[in-house]
Amino acid sequence: MTTLGELGELGLLDELERRGLAAGIEHDAAVVDGLVVTQDVLVEGVHFRFDLLDWRELGARAAAVNISDLAASGAEPLALLVSLGLPAETQLDDALELYAGLNERGVPIRGGDTTRADRVVLSVTALGRSARVPGRAGARVGDAVVVTGPLGAAGAAFRGGRLPPVPDRVEDGKRLAQVATAMLDLSDGLARDAGHLARRSGVRLAVELERVPLAAGAELDDVGFGEDYELLATTPDPLGFAVIGRVEEGEGAALTLGGEPYELAGWEHFR
Amino acid sequence: MTTLGELGELGLLDELERRGLAAGIEHDAAVVDGLVVTQDVLVEGVHFRFDLLDWRELGARAAAVNISDLAASGAEPLALLVSLGLPAETQLDDALELYAGLNERGVPIRGGDTTRADRVVLSVTALGRSARVPGRAGARVGDAVVVTGPLGAAGAAFRGGRLPPVPDRVEDGKRLAQVATAMLDLSDGLARDAGHLARRSGVRLAVELERVPLAAGAELDDVGFGEDYELLATTPDPLGFAVIGRVEEGEGAALTLGGEPYELAGWEHFR
Repeated sequence: MTTLGELGELGLLDELERRGLAAGIEHDAAVVDGLVVTQDVLVEGVHFRFDLLDWRELGARAAAVNISDLAASGAEPLALLVSLGLPAETQLDDALELYAGLNERGVPIRGGDTTRADRVVLSVTALGRSARVPGRAGARVGDAVVVTGPLGAAGAAFRGGRLPPVPDRVEDGKRLAQVATAMLDLSDGLARDAGHLARRSGVRLAVELERVPLAAGAELDDVGFGEDYELLATTPDPLGFAVIGRVEEGEGAALTLGGEPYELAGWEHFR
Repeated sequence: MTTLGELGELGLLDELERRGLAAGIEHDAAVVDGLVVTQDVLVEGVHFRFDLLDWRELGARAAAVNISDLAASGAEPLALLVSLGLPAETQLDDALELYAGLNERGVPIRGGDTTRADRVVLSVTALGRSARVPGRAGARVGDAVVVTGPLGAAGAAFRGGRLPPVPDRVEDGKRLAQVATAMLDLSDGLARDAGHLARRSGVRLAVELERVPLAAGAELDDVGFGEDYELLATTPDPLGFAVIGRVEEGEGAALTLGGEPYELAGWEHFR
């Protein structure tokens, strides 16, 4: 008898794929009939707490995180679907603030559901259209590894009891998607996310941590926290974005600082 | 200060639409760039309990309910996205059973997410393609009101401590969508769902309850329970489906038994 806590999130996904029960679950986005579709669920007490953000910030964050998944697929956002579970004692004004936050990026809410729950549960599906989805499996030896902005802001802010806004990288994503061989948004931390790209592509991502742009107030280990939502891409043409490493033969993410291996903490959803 | 418990689900949706914060939330499905998209969230203890169904049944039901929403849009299912929150102590075998259930209708799972939660939270997005989506706002005076099968099975079974399987009405939905002026699947009970169509279409749905086909073991009031997932449509051509009423000038759902008004209980998500 194995529990998911022992197996971990990637272990469960491997089991599901091996048995043909699911595909693409770990991807940022599915492509269905030409449309890019992403989905995230946020559960109060697990993914957010109201002492760290208010109702409007929660809505803004939920929308922005899904739009970030679209950006990682080079997609232009078209619509959101929002399914919301709320306690019966929730104030109308709070619910309206939540939806105001969900609307902040200007992507229209075109459907969804509302229902009662004993804590706040927010599921957002985002839909977009992309001319070219790089995916995660195409990184090639010799590609540059680039990021679209400084990392560590979320880790640093979390230490201070807040989460920073999610950056809007839709335009960068569309530019990079034209040339990138693989791309994702940094939600799980640089070590784990670089490891995803490496594993799916059958290559090694060699990252030199001294080249990683750090957000104001961030320390290097904050880069492992995740939730920065900058894009990480492998590409033959860096297009002017910050180059932090190179794709090599081998496997895994090889993070070094001053030429020596350096271990960043990651984020394991089931532990 | 108004709570959602006082306002009710439809009250919240009215507030959201009035302020331009959301559209189409109460619909079965959104149509985005030609694709039909539905979304549902199931929370343990709110939408299901493991004493009423097991892991596989939960998965099967979550998939079937979303596929039913596609059927109500006349859509052929293409893919599911599944986001799943599970406690760390969940057994792998149970999680695999859940996904086996999600796969029972043969619609491939193409993406989603897994995460830790302190109770089971299951969000399913279904995507499909429809030649014509009837919507809910087009019912016309003189149309027949039809249902695709007997009602009350869920209410009757719930009294016995189980929920029956969700019927597969994809083919019926595609047929009806060619001619129907409005269509939905019966999830909230005949009284409320007929009321939805009437309100959106600006007409009255006159339903003669003695014409409603009852499932085996069901009593008339079970028809108000909902969760039957038969399709309810208004159409100039009944196509051989059971006619239970007529669209008239006026407003609301007018349910009669033997010519006298009859009040069926409904289901209010926030109460």
